[in-house]
Amino acid sequence: MILIKLGGSIISDKNKPFSFNEGVVRNVAAELKNLYPEKSFILVHGGGSFGHPMARKYGIRGGLAAGETKKLIGFSHTHEAMLELNEKIIDIFLKAELPAFSISSSSIFITDKGNIVHGELKVIKEALKIGLIPVLFGDVVIDESKGMDIISGDAIMAYIANEMKAEKAIFLMDVDGIYDREPGKKDARLIDVIDETTVIRHGMEKIDVTGGIKNKIREAMKMDCMVYFINGMVKGNLTKAIKGEKIGTIKKRK
Amino acid sequence: MILIKLGGSIISDKNKPFSFNEGVVRNVAAELKNLYPEKSFILVHGGGSFGHPMARKYGIRGGLAAGETKKLIGFSHTHEAMLELNEKIIDIFLKAELPAFSISSSSIFITDKGNIVHGELKVIKEALKIGLIPVLFGDVVIDESKGMDIISGDAIMAYIANEMKAEKAIFLMDVDGIYDREPGKKDARLIDVIDETTVIRHGMEKIDVTGGIKNKIREAMKMDCMVYFINGMVKGNLTKAIKGEKIGTIKKRK
Repeated sequence: MILIKLGGSIISDKNKPFSFNEGVVRNVAAELKNLYPEKSFILVHGGGSFGHPMARKYGIRGGLAAGETKKLIGFSHTHEAMLELNEKIIDIFLKAELPAFSISSSSIFITDKGNIVHGELKVIKEALKIGLIPVLFGDVVIDESKGMDIISGDAIMAYIANEMKAEKAIFLMDVDGIYDREPGKKDARLIDVIDETTVIRHGMEKIDVTGGIKNKIREAMKMDCMVYFINGMVKGNLTKAIKGEKIGTIKKRK
Repeated sequence: MILIKLGGSIISDKNKPFSFNEGVVRNVAAELKNLYPEKSFILVHGGGSFGHPMARKYGIRGGLAAGETKKLIGFSHTHEAMLELNEKIIDIFLKAELPAFSISSSSIFITDKGNIVHGELKVIKEALKIGLIPVLFGDVVIDESKGMDIISGDAIMAYIANEMKAEKAIFLMDVDGIYDREPGKKDARLIDVIDETTVIRHGMEKIDVTGGIKNKIREAMKMDCMVYFINGMVKGNLTKAIKGEKIGTIKKRK
């Protein structure tokens, strides 16, 4: 099983609320179409400009105090916004004759102080067996200490990669991989292989409430499998990573 | 915790594809608004004219044979149709300032030959604790023997009622309760109390793929708690049932 993360920054324009990059998702589907059903896949997507602005608006990450009905309503609104984005992605896959199937992350995960302490993967495992392509997403989540929180797509990637022994995990980004500083800055250099000691001076992304690149690397470091960080805007890159060609930034198997 | 089933026949017109009876759901929300948060609720809704025509079109109940990608695609389309109906219901509750929260049934249940053999209720239990009103729905489901099947809202009601020790379960229908034959037929008589020996000559509903009234009664008989079958089209009925007034058809606690 190969795990693929559709980063929020490639499926939508983070600066335009509720924007959706249909073309990028259609290209991903076209590439997977050539590899399914020989390979099996689980997809996870980020919040992009659907989930993040809602999560910020309602202060979901700040947790819940007793009697905050308005915050509970915001929690539900944020989930619905994510379902709206998820439906657009599912729809593109179904049109490409790929049986993508929505799994609501908030229906199966529980966190405690931001860490996943409970994840119910039975349906996902059975779904793979019958040939479905489960599609999860960064979502709201019930947190045992804080009441509520956000669960990032990256945290879901790490959890599933280890619990289900993924063959590899691929992060589709809007840049060529992991850089040693803000990509685009003078002297920014693409890192070929990252490991525990790689120096990362990368700052937090603009409106990514789940912590951006630093968090992505932190989650990747937890994974037992090989991890690829590649540019998801370039057609063909995903196929190269799946076939094991040298591309983007790689974290080796532990 | 009180379990409430919004029957497919009251939230939509089964003869009109993708029709939605907004007014009925708004009335339910208005009644619950007076009782929340003193009482806690779990809602389950049926497929109505969203889920049933899709399930029939794709033959979901017939199960899956190897390599049937088209059927897997239909499975996912049917779930998306249910999410569309669910979103309409959630939206009405949120507007009424009730924190309804969508739980995808197909993300947490597994059946085997039509019986629920696995149900992951941890998120639902935690959701109740923080004040959310979980809203589940009849849905597609992965079946261990058949590959795929439909899970009815009624089966979900029975499972949750027993696993979570519901105070009572209330079925909102488009008639006054359970009749001894097709309601509207000559001599049809409303039954006050049903039990194991009640003679039911009721036929199957028109396009209800989950087996209609007979199945509803079968599921109610499994429940340890008190069960009400009431007319959900009449304002005030739900409040009466919640308060324990004599109304509709009752199945007593075992």
